[in-house]
Amino acid sequence: MSNIPTKTRSWILTNKPTGLATISGDKPTFTLETRDLPALQNDQVLVKALYYSNDPAQRGWISPTIPEGRLYVPPVEVGTAMRTRGLAEVIDSKSDKVPKGTIVSGTTDWNEYVVLDASAVTPVQPLPGGLSLTHYLGALGGTGLTAYYGLVKVCEAKKGEKIVVSGAAGATGSMVVQIAKNIVGASNVIGIAGSDSKCRWVESLGADKCLNYKSPSFAKDLKEATKDGVDVYFDNVGGEILDLMLGNMSMHGRIAACGSISGYNSDDEPTILKNYFQVITMRLQLRGFIIIDYLPKAGEALKLFREAIQEGKLKVGDENETVVPTKFEDVPKTWLTLFSGGNTGKLVTKLEG
Amino acid sequence: MSNIPTKTRSWILTNKPTGLATISGDKPTFTLETRDLPALQNDQVLVKALYYSNDPAQRGWISPTIPEGRLYVPPVEVGTAMRTRGLAEVIDSKSDKVPKGTIVSGTTDWNEYVVLDASAVTPVQPLPGGLSLTHYLGALGGTGLTAYYGLVKVCEAKKGEKIVVSGAAGATGSMVVQIAKNIVGASNVIGIAGSDSKCRWVESLGADKCLNYKSPSFAKDLKEATKDGVDVYFDNVGGEILDLMLGNMSMHGRIAACGSISGYNSDDEPTILKNYFQVITMRLQLRGFIIIDYLPKAGEALKLFREAIQEGKLKVGDENETVVPTKFEDVPKTWLTLFSGGNTGKLVTKLEG
Repeated sequence: MSNIPTKTRSWILTNKPTGLATISGDKPTFTLETRDLPALQNDQVLVKALYYSNDPAQRGWISPTIPEGRLYVPPVEVGTAMRTRGLAEVIDSKSDKVPKGTIVSGTTDWNEYVVLDASAVTPVQPLPGGLSLTHYLGALGGTGLTAYYGLVKVCEAKKGEKIVVSGAAGATGSMVVQIAKNIVGASNVIGIAGSDSKCRWVESLGADKCLNYKSPSFAKDLKEATKDGVDVYFDNVGGEILDLMLGNMSMHGRIAACGSISGYNSDDEPTILKNYFQVITMRLQLRGFIIIDYLPKAGEALKLFREAIQEGKLKVGDENETVVPTKFEDVPKTWLTLFSGGNTGKLVTKLEG
Repeated sequence: MSNIPTKTRSWILTNKPTGLATISGDKPTFTLETRDLPALQNDQVLVKALYYSNDPAQRGWISPTIPEGRLYVPPVEVGTAMRTRGLAEVIDSKSDKVPKGTIVSGTTDWNEYVVLDASAVTPVQPLPGGLSLTHYLGALGGTGLTAYYGLVKVCEAKKGEKIVVSGAAGATGSMVVQIAKNIVGASNVIGIAGSDSKCRWVESLGADKCLNYKSPSFAKDLKEATKDGVDVYFDNVGGEILDLMLGNMSMHGRIAACGSISGYNSDDEPTILKNYFQVITMRLQLRGFIIIDYLPKAGEALKLFREAIQEGKLKVGDENETVVPTKFEDVPKTWLTLFSGGNTGKLVTKLEG
């Protein structure tokens, strides 16, 4: 019992940010604190966090401008640890079902150690081919499911269609590219990403073309690349690229509004659409979605993913994630690289020490 | 033969407007010209215009900023008569099917007289109860069909749902209110209109409530009136009211993007959405539509309308239209009242003389 910790370091939300989150200054977004762990109760486990998932959506959970009741989960409360999903090792247990030593996925939040109900964690099984368990946070978890259901259910993407995806080098976008090309059977898949090297990677995943949105000729390049039409646009970024796409969609085109990362750190900035009128004239459909609505059916998609991996249609491996070894003091810093284009594929924090 | 005209006065599009259309100044939008009529060919008719339909959508047809190929009809070309539908009397005919004296509907454009192919005009039948034929341009024409298909097909509005409609005192909106309440069976219908007197009229059509968007407390009033949720929003106006509605829709709410009249006379002004993120968090669906896609099925809806009128579920009469007796010189002036809130129900130009 002597090695069981009684305290944990945690990154606490201390102020909701209006721009990029901070850890210093007058109103730091996050503050590193050490807190007592509660005593373990029956049917609970004490876990040590190993990996954290990093997701643009987390920024929405701490936004000061989303009104009450207009988010799909409760916002993170000031004074509590920043919310995240993670992988963790059970280091103490009062649950027969989840014994000590089990590796689980669950909502660890930004805690080194945390007491969770055993019913709230999911033991994870080894993956075939020696794949890293971190893929449960990405391609084989919520990220991959977001890509699949967004494309197949929200956009109703069909074989032979022309598909554009933004944030194509990101966790979700890079899965959209592969699913579009190799599972849906799109005739043309165009990615949009933030550097030439990311674009080459997106093309290596199967995109017919990938465009760098930081290029001065991007708007023109996009117009040219989409001149034969766009049936489906999977939007991870919102903002200006969404606006350009409204001007490039085919008649009756469908857009999945998955994210709007371009606006996540400018809470007071509105979305400005010069081409809104084309929603009407071109009869476009824009549908927002949140993956939690599809989780009850997730088994079906995950089965399909496993088959697709075996058939070589879905490449899931080290190159699909950016795993950043991180000291606990630097947890927010690693998360922030999401917004500076620091990752290709899923950004995963690997806790050191 | 002596009374058959050989010339016509016409309002010609001479410059595409960037703001409100004009008929004077350096670059008048419309110019009154007198032109020769072509000789009548076989299977053609010469018609005298009696009534013109006035529709916000016409502004889109002369917009300088909608790129080529991104409108649902060819734009009106500079140098040609402004496009409109109308009712007209056949005053000369080389068609057995459409003899002299027939009243027809068709695309007369802003011409006093015009030669049309007989196949391009539709003879209109008298309406029961002595209803004015002008309703073929409104409630029993494209306007009514827009309301019906937008609500029933685009929004998939269902019995017992809560429905909001903007532009509720306009031609389409006032039909949406009646169809929502009396045909769909909505549990709550809230209209939005531009004056208190319009609002009282909208309530007389069956709306449970109508809010004046010019009131200083409008945003608060709308929030209060929609606090029990909004399943369906029928959007005729775009802009700020659309933005407010994004913040008031229920989870999985559906929006029909029918028009965005608030932006029609400010071609360079973008649509600014502070609440865009809620499209994602609340899983909203926004669908643009154009009635021409539904015209092949129009017979079905028009049959239902006739039954609904007989059953008293749909009130169509003088109070559903604003018929403005207009000298030909003033045709653009009457049309412009669309944008200054001058009409309740359908705005119809009745040509004098």
